[in-house]
Amino acid sequence: METKAEFSPLLDTDTPLYMQVYNYYKSLIVSGKLPPKTKLPSLRHCAETLGISRTTAEGAYLQLCADGYILSKPKSGYFVTDLYFHAPRPALAPQAEKPAAPLYDFASLSVDRESFDFNLWRRYLKSALRQDERLLSYGEVQGERDLREALAQYLAEKRNVVCRADSIVIGAGVQSLLHILCAVLHDKKTVAFCDPAFLQGRAVFQDHGFTIREREADAQIFYVSPSHMDRRGDVMPTDARIALLKRIAARGTLLIEDDYDNEFCYFDRPAPALQGLDGGRHVVYIGTFSRLLLPSIRISFLVLPDSLAARYREIAPLYNQTASKAEQIALCQFIRDGHLAGQIRKVRKLYTQKARLLETAVREAFGKAADVRLRETGFVVQVRLRMPLAADDLEQRARKAGVSLRAENDANGACTLFLACSGVRASDFPDAAARMRAVCLLQDTETPT
Amino acid sequence: METKAEFSPLLDTDTPLYMQVYNYYKSLIVSGKLPPKTKLPSLRHCAETLGISRTTAEGAYLQLCADGYILSKPKSGYFVTDLYFHAPRPALAPQAEKPAAPLYDFASLSVDRESFDFNLWRRYLKSALRQDERLLSYGEVQGERDLREALAQYLAEKRNVVCRADSIVIGAGVQSLLHILCAVLHDKKTVAFCDPAFLQGRAVFQDHGFTIREREADAQIFYVSPSHMDRRGDVMPTDARIALLKRIAARGTLLIEDDYDNEFCYFDRPAPALQGLDGGRHVVYIGTFSRLLLPSIRISFLVLPDSLAARYREIAPLYNQTASKAEQIALCQFIRDGHLAGQIRKVRKLYTQKARLLETAVREAFGKAADVRLRETGFVVQVRLRMPLAADDLEQRARKAGVSLRAENDANGACTLFLACSGVRASDFPDAAARMRAVCLLQDTETPT
Repeated sequence: METKAEFSPLLDTDTPLYMQVYNYYKSLIVSGKLPPKTKLPSLRHCAETLGISRTTAEGAYLQLCADGYILSKPKSGYFVTDLYFHAPRPALAPQAEKPAAPLYDFASLSVDRESFDFNLWRRYLKSALRQDERLLSYGEVQGERDLREALAQYLAEKRNVVCRADSIVIGAGVQSLLHILCAVLHDKKTVAFCDPAFLQGRAVFQDHGFTIREREADAQIFYVSPSHMDRRGDVMPTDARIALLKRIAARGTLLIEDDYDNEFCYFDRPAPALQGLDGGRHVVYIGTFSRLLLPSIRISFLVLPDSLAARYREIAPLYNQTASKAEQIALCQFIRDGHLAGQIRKVRKLYTQKARLLETAVREAFGKAADVRLRETGFVVQVRLRMPLAADDLEQRARKAGVSLRAENDANGACTLFLACSGVRASDFPDAAARMRAVCLLQDTETPT
Repeated sequence: METKAEFSPLLDTDTPLYMQVYNYYKSLIVSGKLPPKTKLPSLRHCAETLGISRTTAEGAYLQLCADGYILSKPKSGYFVTDLYFHAPRPALAPQAEKPAAPLYDFASLSVDRESFDFNLWRRYLKSALRQDERLLSYGEVQGERDLREALAQYLAEKRNVVCRADSIVIGAGVQSLLHILCAVLHDKKTVAFCDPAFLQGRAVFQDHGFTIREREADAQIFYVSPSHMDRRGDVMPTDARIALLKRIAARGTLLIEDDYDNEFCYFDRPAPALQGLDGGRHVVYIGTFSRLLLPSIRISFLVLPDSLAARYREIAPLYNQTASKAEQIALCQFIRDGHLAGQIRKVRKLYTQKARLLETAVREAFGKAADVRLRETGFVVQVRLRMPLAADDLEQRARKAGVSLRAENDANGACTLFLACSGVRASDFPDAAARMRAVCLLQDTETPT
C-alpha cells in the first residue's frame, strides 16, 4: 500500500504532528483502507516510513487506542478494531422530486411579499440582539413574561380573548404547543377534528395515544379552526359559533380553537373568537404569528382555561421552551409599539385591493363563461363555471398550465373555482386569468402572446 | 345607569362612529355592567341618549348581533345574550416564588459571558435577515438543507459522526426532536435512561406511551449522555463506550446518544461519539447548539441511522419545523466560515484557564482541610473534604451562603464537592472559595471583609 504520499505534515501547521499521524491512520481505518483486524506497522516502522520520531508515533497510536480505532495486543502489536462498519453504506432512496412550484399559486394562503415591512422587523430583532445578558440565559419555559403580558393585552383588546399572561404558553409552532397540551389533557382520550384534513394536528394527538373520532359528539375534545373549516376556507358564522359553544357546554366537551388566519378572513373585521364568547371556560385558544408576520418566525401561543393553566404549571418544568428568545423579545416590543395591529390593518387593506383586482381580471377573462364573485370572507374569488367539468381533472390541468387552484363540484355537478389572492402578484392576475380560462374552455393552455 | 359620560366619540377619530358605539356597548356587556338578558335601549332611545343618528345606532346593534353580544327578538327589542361569563374569575394561585439565583453557581453548567462573541453572531444573523425572499416562505420540514450539509461535514470531521445531510433532522431543542423520534420509533415500547434524573426526556417518552425501564438490559431503547452520566458530570471512558456498543449490538437495542456538552468535557479533546464508533448503525445521535453558542439559540439536531431516516421520510410531512429559519441560515454560514470550530477552541481554552484558577483559589482557601484536584474531564474541580459532613445538608447551607454546588458522600461517608467553573467569574473565585470554606468548617458564612 502506498501510504507515504498521502501523509503531508507540512500542509497543516496548526495541528500537532502526532494528531496529524492520528488523523492519517483514522482516515485509513474509517475509509476501510485498513480493514478490521489489520495489523498496523510497528512504532519503529511507522516512525521510519513517515519520517517522524518514535515518540510522535507512540502518541498517535495511544490516541487511536483511546478512541477505539485500534487495540494494543501485548507482545504482538497494534490491530484495527472490528467496531467500524466498513462496508459501503446502502444509499438512501433518492428523495422524491418536489413538484416544481406553480407559476401562479391561488391554492395556498402564502404571504404576500409586499405585506411585511422587513426593515421594521429587522430593527426590532437587532434591538433584541443587543440584550446580551438576557440572551445568555435560557428563557422562561412558559415563554418570556413580557411577551405574554403584551399578548394578553393585545388579545383582550383585539380578539375578545379572555386571558392573563399566566394562562398563555409560548412555543415554536402549533405542534410544539399541541405536544404540551396533550400532556396537560392526559385524562382525556378522544378527539375529533372539524377539518379532517388537518393531518399535522391528528399526528400529534395520535402520537400521544388519543383516539380520533369522526363526529364531534363522540369526542371529549373538539378541534376547530373557525376561519378554515375546510379547503375552500369557509369561515364559521357567528350564529354557528354560538350554537357550537352551547353544544359543547351541554356535553362537557373541551374545545380547541385554532384561530389560524382569523384576522385575515373578513374584509371588514374578524368574527369574535370562540374563546371570548365562551368566557374562556371550555376553550383552549391557539394563535400563531407565522402567517401574520413571516412564515419564518416560529412563534405561536396557547391560552389555557384556569383549570388547565393550573395543571400546566405542575408539569411546566418538564417541557422546554422551543421559541427563539431573541424573536420573542423582538415581538414583544413590536406588539407594544402597536405594529401588530398596524400590520393587520395593512395586510387586510392590501388583500382587499388585490381580491377586487383578481375579481375584475377573472371576470374580464371568462366573460359569460362563468359567474364570478368575491366571497365575503377569506379574500377568495369564487368562479362558478357555466360548463360541467370534473374538479379533480381541472385542478390537474390547471397545474400543468402553471396555475395552482382549488376546484369543487357541487351536488349538481357544477364546478366552482376558489382563488386565494394573497400568493400571486396583482400584475400577474391577467395572465393567470387567461391561463385559467384556457384550461376551463379546454383550449390550448399556452396564452396567446 | 350613568352611561353618557363614558361615551366620548371625540377621543377616537380613527374608528368609525358606529364601531365606537359598538365598543361602548361591548365593554358594558363584557364587564358585566349589562348582565345577560338585559334589554338594550331602543334604537331611537340609544340615538337620542348618545347624540348619534339612528342609522349609526342600527349599524352598531347589527354588529353586536353578528358578534353574539346581543340578540334581536322580533317585536320586543334587543337583549344581552347569556353567553358571556360575567362572574369574577377565580384568581389563579400565585406562582411559587422562584428561589433567588445564587451569587455563585458552581452547580449548573451555564455559559460564560466571555465565551461568546456576540458581535460576530449578530453579524451573521443580520446577514440572514437580509435574505427577504427566503424568509418569506416556510422552511424545509427537516431543517434548511444548507445547514444540514454544513452540519454533516462538521460532524464527520470533528465528532467522527457518520452522516449525510439526508439523515439529519433539525429542531428547536432536544424535546422537539424527541417528539419526532418517538413517532419514528413507534414499533418500540420500552426505554431506559442512563441518567434517571433526565426528567424532560422521560416526559416525552411517557407522553408517547413508552414504558420506562430501570435497566438497560430490559429496554428496547437506551438513552445515554456519554458526557453527563450523572450529576457529577462523569464522562464515559472510551473502553466503556466500546463495551456498551457491543452489548447493544448483541441485544438489538437502539441507542440514543445525547452528545450534550461533549465538546466541553475534555481538556484535551473530546472522546469519540458512540455513533461514529458504531458506524451509525444502531445509534441515534442528538446534538444541540444551545450550550455551545447561546442558550437562547434553540437549534438542535438528530442524526438518524438509514433505516430510521427512511421511516422519518414517510412521516416528515406531518411534522413542522420548529427552529427559527433566520437562526438556521445564520448558523449555517457561521459553521461554514469555521467559527463553530473556533468557538469550541476558544471556550475550551477559557474553561481550562478558569478551572485551574478555581483549583488554586479553593486550595488556598481550604489549605489542609481538603484534598483539591482538577478532574480530567468536565472542567470540574473536585474537593474532597477531610471532615465528615452530610452532602445534602452541606448543599443547603452553601446555598444559604450564596453558593450553589454539588456534593456527594461516598460509601465511607467522606464528602466531596464538585465545582463546575463555567458559570462563575474568575474574579469571584476567591470570595466564593472563602464562603465554601466557612460553610464546610461550620464557621459564620459571612466572609471577613
